[in-house]
Amino acid sequence: MRKTLGTLALLGISGTVTGAHAQSSVTVYGTLDAGIAKVSGTTAQIAKRDNNKLGFRGVEDLGGGLKALFQLEIRYESDTGTVEAGSRPLFQGQSRVGLQGAFGTVRLGRGLTAYQEASTAFEPWNGLPTVVPSSTGGSIGPGFQPDIHVAGYTSDALGPAGNSRNRFSNAVFYNSPLYNGFQLNLTVGAKEANGNAALIGRGTALAPQYPANSAPSAAPYSVSATYNSGRFGALAAYERNAIETKLWALAASYKPLPDLKLMASYQQQDQSHTMAANADIKAWLLGANYTMGAGKLLLGYGQKTPDAAPHVKQASIGYEHSLSARTYLYADLSNRKTPPVSTPAILRSYTFYGAGVHHNF
Amino acid sequence: MRKTLGTLALLGISGTVTGAHAQSSVTVYGTLDAGIAKVSGTTAQIAKRDNNKLGFRGVEDLGGGLKALFQLEIRYESDTGTVEAGSRPLFQGQSRVGLQGAFGTVRLGRGLTAYQEASTAFEPWNGLPTVVPSSTGGSIGPGFQPDIHVAGYTSDALGPAGNSRNRFSNAVFYNSPLYNGFQLNLTVGAKEANGNAALIGRGTALAPQYPANSAPSAAPYSVSATYNSGRFGALAAYERNAIETKLWALAASYKPLPDLKLMASYQQQDQSHTMAANADIKAWLLGANYTMGAGKLLLGYGQKTPDAAPHVKQASIGYEHSLSARTYLYADLSNRKTPPVSTPAILRSYTFYGAGVHHNF
Amino acid sequence: MRKTLGTLALLGISGTVTGAHAQSSVTVYGTLDAGIAKVSGTTAQIAKRDNNKLGFRGVEDLGGGLKALFQLEIRYESDTGTVEAGSRPLFQGQSRVGLQGAFGTVRLGRGLTAYQEASTAFEPWNGLPTVVPSSTGGSIGPGFQPDIHVAGYTSDALGPAGNSRNRFSNAVFYNSPLYNGFQLNLTVGAKEANGNAALIGRGTALAPQYPANSAPSAAPYSVSATYNSGRFGALAAYERNAIETKLWALAASYKPLPDLKLMASYQQQDQSHTMAANADIKAWLLGANYTMGAGKLLLGYGQKTPDAAPHVKQASIGYEHSLSARTYLYADLSNRKTPPVSTPAILRSYTFYGAGVHHNF
Repeated sequence: MRKTLGTLALLGISGTVTGAHAQSSVTVYGTLDAGIAKVSGTTAQIAKRDNNKLGFRGVEDLGGGLKALFQLEIRYESDTGTVEAGSRPLFQGQSRVGLQGAFGTVRLGRGLTAYQEASTAFEPWNGLPTVVPSSTGGSIGPGFQPDIHVAGYTSDALGPAGNSRNRFSNAVFYNSPLYNGFQLNLTVGAKEANGNAALIGRGTALAPQYPANSAPSAAPYSVSATYNSGRFGALAAYERNAIETKLWALAASYKPLPDLKLMASYQQQDQSHTMAANADIKAWLLGANYTMGAGKLLLGYGQKTPDAAPHVKQASIGYEHSLSARTYLYADLSNRKTPPVSTPAILRSYTFYGAGVHHNF
Repeated sequence: MRKTLGTLALLGISGTVTGAHAQSSVTVYGTLDAGIAKVSGTTAQIAKRDNNKLGFRGVEDLGGGLKALFQLEIRYESDTGTVEAGSRPLFQGQSRVGLQGAFGTVRLGRGLTAYQEASTAFEPWNGLPTVVPSSTGGSIGPGFQPDIHVAGYTSDALGPAGNSRNRFSNAVFYNSPLYNGFQLNLTVGAKEANGNAALIGRGTALAPQYPANSAPSAAPYSVSATYNSGRFGALAAYERNAIETKLWALAASYKPLPDLKLMASYQQQDQSHTMAANADIKAWLLGANYTMGAGKLLLGYGQKTPDAAPHVKQASIGYEHSLSARTYLYADLSNRKTPPVSTPAILRSYTFYGAGVHHNF
Repeated sequence: MRKTLGTLALLGISGTVTGAHAQSSVTVYGTLDAGIAKVSGTTAQIAKRDNNKLGFRGVEDLGGGLKALFQLEIRYESDTGTVEAGSRPLFQGQSRVGLQGAFGTVRLGRGLTAYQEASTAFEPWNGLPTVVPSSTGGSIGPGFQPDIHVAGYTSDALGPAGNSRNRFSNAVFYNSPLYNGFQLNLTVGAKEANGNAALIGRGTALAPQYPANSAPSAAPYSVSATYNSGRFGALAAYERNAIETKLWALAASYKPLPDLKLMASYQQQDQSHTMAANADIKAWLLGANYTMGAGKLLLGYGQKTPDAAPHVKQASIGYEHSLSARTYLYADLSNRKTPPVSTPAILRSYTFYGAGVHHNF
């Protein structure tokens, strides 16, 4: 709202040309992914496979190696046109602004945590977290990101109902420069309340451990260290969320051939701050990506081990066929053994089939 | 979320330049229409005449005659700045992605049905569906689209409350290539629940025919065939929505002079699946558009015949004055005889006056 | 929805190239501001200082000095990615379309009133209205815009809960051309209901003066006259909102040096239509901006005088350091003496600290 008296009507209108904002450079980008998906025993659905994004971003060169950067990212459902889950923040993807220089990158706002942002490189579906609901409980998809690859952990335990699982709001994000392939990433959240529903935890329904709209009981933070030397990649990460659930993760990738990438990860979640029993969850995942000209084969197998409940097991195979650098077709087949809602102690086998089109713009 | 380890901080920021998305081409487009409207007996209002849109679309040439295409369209109220009806999906207009080639066009997502998309060419207000509320019930506007031109039918019977009346979510959309002026269009929706309120239908308040969040009782679909030979146009269409209401429609247009377009349509709605009485609605419409230099005259007259209730009748005249290819001023006058909410068996006459500005960008 | 039969599939897709909209020119612009803020006795927060905007605007030259113009502006929270206050209209900033010519500028839709749009030039924080909640009640920020600079007045008394305080929906906006530095601005709102919560006023809880979703009891309007001669600026304004609260304001600015701008304003609010006692609020404000190369110093002091309650007093100092024409860093320190919610008759002193980055794009 920077304007000078007298040019009021003009500035409100043609501020682009004459206003204080010299040259503007906004890139509008996004993803629109839609396909058909079916879980055994459930009707076929129109579904996305990737998150759908519509974003706005820019980089301004400030001179002397310094840059200002911003990014705003809408996330939406391609099948219904709503924002994600019908109620998530408009800029669910991220809303961050910051500076980049010799010191690294510092950003403020909302975005993926240091752990969550780095971990997707070790997941054979590249972190595509989408699942479709099955008729008997649980949500099933080909990728491992939303469950096994993070040991069922959520970064955003005190977000509003239905909110993201892998972001911090009200946070500072730091990424170090690269040192011989090494990078350090740190995210620290403020102890601000964010509109959560009550969370019983070790309390009772009348006296929940985290009442509605609680501030975090400790400042949430996330730290990850990554290494990349072309052929070899590695990740070590530790994160503590707003309700003091802790997660640590190790992951590595290796390319024995230029077209073959092998991945492995192990992660452990400690929920003892809010759960008296079964507070530990461990999970591991093996994956591979094999590129064959315009085709790409995706393979994965993983398990998640709740303390006193059956192992969740998932095996997936997928194929992507590139029509261009921006557009590909895909097909996935996945089997997941997981307990349905009605019988949490008994594993049931679900098979997922999916195919669709993925378009970046 | 396609990135390689080690370039993490950089890619999140300057993905435009160095990321996997080669060249991006998003067109930002839209409509902003606002004016003053008044219905007899009601205070003057600031109102739109056309739907207001802010959209993002693009076409990618994949080579060999194949194209990838996407379109995302926000719909909003110009007078209050809200999304349409205050609660509709963010991309109420459409969210579709697909491929176009010699086989035609296939898209997935949410959008106008094959019938609804084709029918507006036979409505003298070009499908501008906007109405303003009157003080005694009912909503009144100059165009015929939302009521008479579709025989009061809605494509989206199981959408969330307040949702669109002429779209399918969770659907596959096919448009054939043009064969000597002929085109075939087909839309098929999945049997997915979409958050509807309970719909009593032939049930009772305690046991509604369609409880809240029902899946369609049959897969909804829409088919339309169109013909266009410059002077002559025609449409035949059949559609069945999620609650098995059926509609068929016939329409034709003829240009006796290059500047004069005459239109006629007939449509019939069958609601017998959910209504025991008065399940059939028939409607017809005559219209004309006459272009005079920068001016355009719009004329229309139509009737809608509920079984055991009075005929709804509407006569409208409008004028558009183009200031450019993108901007025009308009004025409308319309009379509608329709039963008010309080006395559904008695027709009342409402007069609508409106004027405003329509701007495409 | 202007299309001709037969080119249906093509037009829905490649309308950019072949459609009725000749050349499109949309500017995407915005602001992303995020920082760290702390009020004494309250935990540190991630907060914005300016309103965050993502907007779309354009000007079309119609020839003969006539222009069509539109502007749509999303407002959002950078720390959580939500639209403002979690529930405001998508285009909270504005949604207006209109024409500009020798007669001035006429726009329709939603936007800042003639008074509110002109007044920010006399507020030392340039109208940055942002505040953060304190732990004991009230919201505290460095700027004077949302409270003292408007004498606690709201333009939008019958908007939906949580809505803007300084805009009209359903309005016509007129700005005259400049005559030797003089400009006249007028905003008139329609008497449309807009979804307000019940407002008791001089009524009772059972019979509120303005029930939920009331139409204005008189058409709201706002008029402002501004003068600007380089060194000297002045404003006189009068506004009446939808519940007949009246405000008048006088303001002036003077530049004794090219880099120094001094500001003073006085405003008075009359709420006697809805309040039996303490209906008058008076406020005054003194401010200065001093530019020093890339730096800018902001100073302000103001008071607000409720009839039978203590004076609210605020003193603020701020500093902005420009990294470019589009990006600056800022730091603010402010002290505000205001009654907390629990003890409205007793002043309490709050100190605000804030620092962050402001980026225009």
